[in-house]
Amino acid sequence: MDETTPAQANVPLGKVTLQGLARELGLSTATISLALRDSPMVAEATRLKVQEAARARGYVANRGAAALRTARTNIVALGLHDIVNPSFTELLAAVEEALTAAGKTVLLGVSQEDVARQARTLGTLAEYRPDAFLVSPAASSTVDDLKALAATGIAVVQVTREIEGSGFDFAGSDDRTGVALGVAHLVALGHRRIGMLGGYGAISTGRKRLAGYKAGLAAAGIPFDPTLVMEGPGLREEGRRQLARLLALEEPPTAAVCFNDLSAFGALMGLSAAGLTPGKDFSLVGYDDIAEAKLWHPGLTSVHTFIAEYGRAAADLALKRIADPGRPMERVEMSPELVVRATTCPPVPVKRRPL
Amino acid sequence: MDETTPAQANVPLGKVTLQGLARELGLSTATISLALRDSPMVAEATRLKVQEAARARGYVANRGAAALRTARTNIVALGLHDIVNPSFTELLAAVEEALTAAGKTVLLGVSQEDVARQARTLGTLAEYRPDAFLVSPAASSTVDDLKALAATGIAVVQVTREIEGSGFDFAGSDDRTGVALGVAHLVALGHRRIGMLGGYGAISTGRKRLAGYKAGLAAAGIPFDPTLVMEGPGLREEGRRQLARLLALEEPPTAAVCFNDLSAFGALMGLSAAGLTPGKDFSLVGYDDIAEAKLWHPGLTSVHTFIAEYGRAAADLALKRIADPGRPMERVEMSPELVVRATTCPPVPVKRRPL
Repeated sequence: MDETTPAQANVPLGKVTLQGLARELGLSTATISLALRDSPMVAEATRLKVQEAARARGYVANRGAAALRTARTNIVALGLHDIVNPSFTELLAAVEEALTAAGKTVLLGVSQEDVARQARTLGTLAEYRPDAFLVSPAASSTVDDLKALAATGIAVVQVTREIEGSGFDFAGSDDRTGVALGVAHLVALGHRRIGMLGGYGAISTGRKRLAGYKAGLAAAGIPFDPTLVMEGPGLREEGRRQLARLLALEEPPTAAVCFNDLSAFGALMGLSAAGLTPGKDFSLVGYDDIAEAKLWHPGLTSVHTFIAEYGRAAADLALKRIADPGRPMERVEMSPELVVRATTCPPVPVKRRPL
Repeated sequence: MDETTPAQANVPLGKVTLQGLARELGLSTATISLALRDSPMVAEATRLKVQEAARARGYVANRGAAALRTARTNIVALGLHDIVNPSFTELLAAVEEALTAAGKTVLLGVSQEDVARQARTLGTLAEYRPDAFLVSPAASSTVDDLKALAATGIAVVQVTREIEGSGFDFAGSDDRTGVALGVAHLVALGHRRIGMLGGYGAISTGRKRLAGYKAGLAAAGIPFDPTLVMEGPGLREEGRRQLARLLALEEPPTAAVCFNDLSAFGALMGLSAAGLTPGKDFSLVGYDDIAEAKLWHPGLTSVHTFIAEYGRAAADLALKRIADPGRPMERVEMSPELVVRATTCPPVPVKRRPL
């Protein structure tokens, strides 16, 4: 790809423009352009319709322009599933720093956990030929979503979340081990009835962290009790709600591990609303250890996942994949570490608080 | 611009590519491309150097490609000064919803309050010809930064923050009135010694919110005391530090208004660390009323700034500017409203807590 030479540009005949075709067919110019270049990102029926309309109107693809686009653009597109979690600010800063040092500029697309929005945003970014895509896939994404990107010839690297078995490079944290560390810490303090707040099966991190929770319990010989697992998105408002549901159980747990720090911050608010002091009346372990964790009073015990480090690793994987598209797939998993602060203590019986 | 017809494509001579030129001159392909198109975003010396090198090597600009690019791309670029504040998630969602309905796709660039990074990110986005730029300028941006964008022929609209007198459309909140509302609420509760946490003079919102604080005091006949103003970025960690500095004053205030909710959340953590209960021992008013404000216990009294509404207004301004580049400049300022929750109460003397 490096030594691409612009092919001879064909001359567009007549006055047919992408814009005109788009208006006539009721499609975006991006879709028209992708269809004319035979992109697999456009449904076959649409592709054929566009190509036929273009031919009928005497439109000849400008191969000079297409060739220019196969040269490197020095853009790397970062597709995130949302930006509400401050962990993404840490990730973005690390990715940008590493890629800027390599002469790249980072553009951001946000799917807001919506697969259709993800397809549209990544499709638009793809139209402008980034050298690579770093993607944290929206919930319920499939391997086909990533394959459609890769089929455009752009390097694809998964970051934070992955689609297991997709065959694309990945950088993130060893989430199973991470949550198991949190459970082991609570077990060592004497807890036997431990809840889990947040996370769900439609995302790889949800599956791995739940597996870590189960593994931690199993290692201590504690049977898994599904009523103690409050599934849901890792958001502050959800964490607060999930904590209230835990406290409303017939026999509430004395502690909980969380899917992420946002869940834990919400749970801290919920404990306060219930008149309980974290680290005195109830134990809570966050996950990620973002900068905010230590700001809270009491400071949140959490599992540090080295976000900046795996962000840099993802950037590095992208650069290596750009340089050598044929290299073998590589996975980078950072080993998390427990950071004990002040929200964990030995177990204290918790009175039930009905909703 | 709508009816652009691709000009006859000139044929590149020899094997000179953007990529090759970029490598030879040690510049990015984006810079080379901008320079060849005489873009004012590239310094004149660089422009001349690139054009001369291109001529010497027989490179003829592919005008077909350039013409394609003057057609609408249906991309709108959103340039934010950071993404750490959840208010930007609310803004992004509103902007995206409005623009998606109009057939546009939103790409995001983040400057992280760095003018040089802003220039690079917006420059790369400009290279791909968005129909419009929505920009919340990085601290210390000047009108020239926006003019360089506008000179590329792309519609420019300011959102949240503005460069006063720049002549570009703007949508945001009436921040002066907003903070004055918060001060008036505290005055009505009996407070006379009121601090201000966060904000600074390098951003328009900092200047306007400080002016609102002063106006609120003046309306109540309370003299302005600069020692009660803790300037700095509106971030949780800063809010916690600023609150500690207020409490360390010889005669601490009994209440504070905040530059934004993040400052207030940090201050809530700081009050808790100082053993003070917000709404009982000390009064605090946030700003923006993002979704998290009501999650806290006690719920944060804040000033609602209608972020989704001004996000939609900014999207609308962009669409109108795209349709009619010559239309008169328009400013949309939403009137904020005070939302009283549980962090404000009548004044209680506050004991000094040295740092």
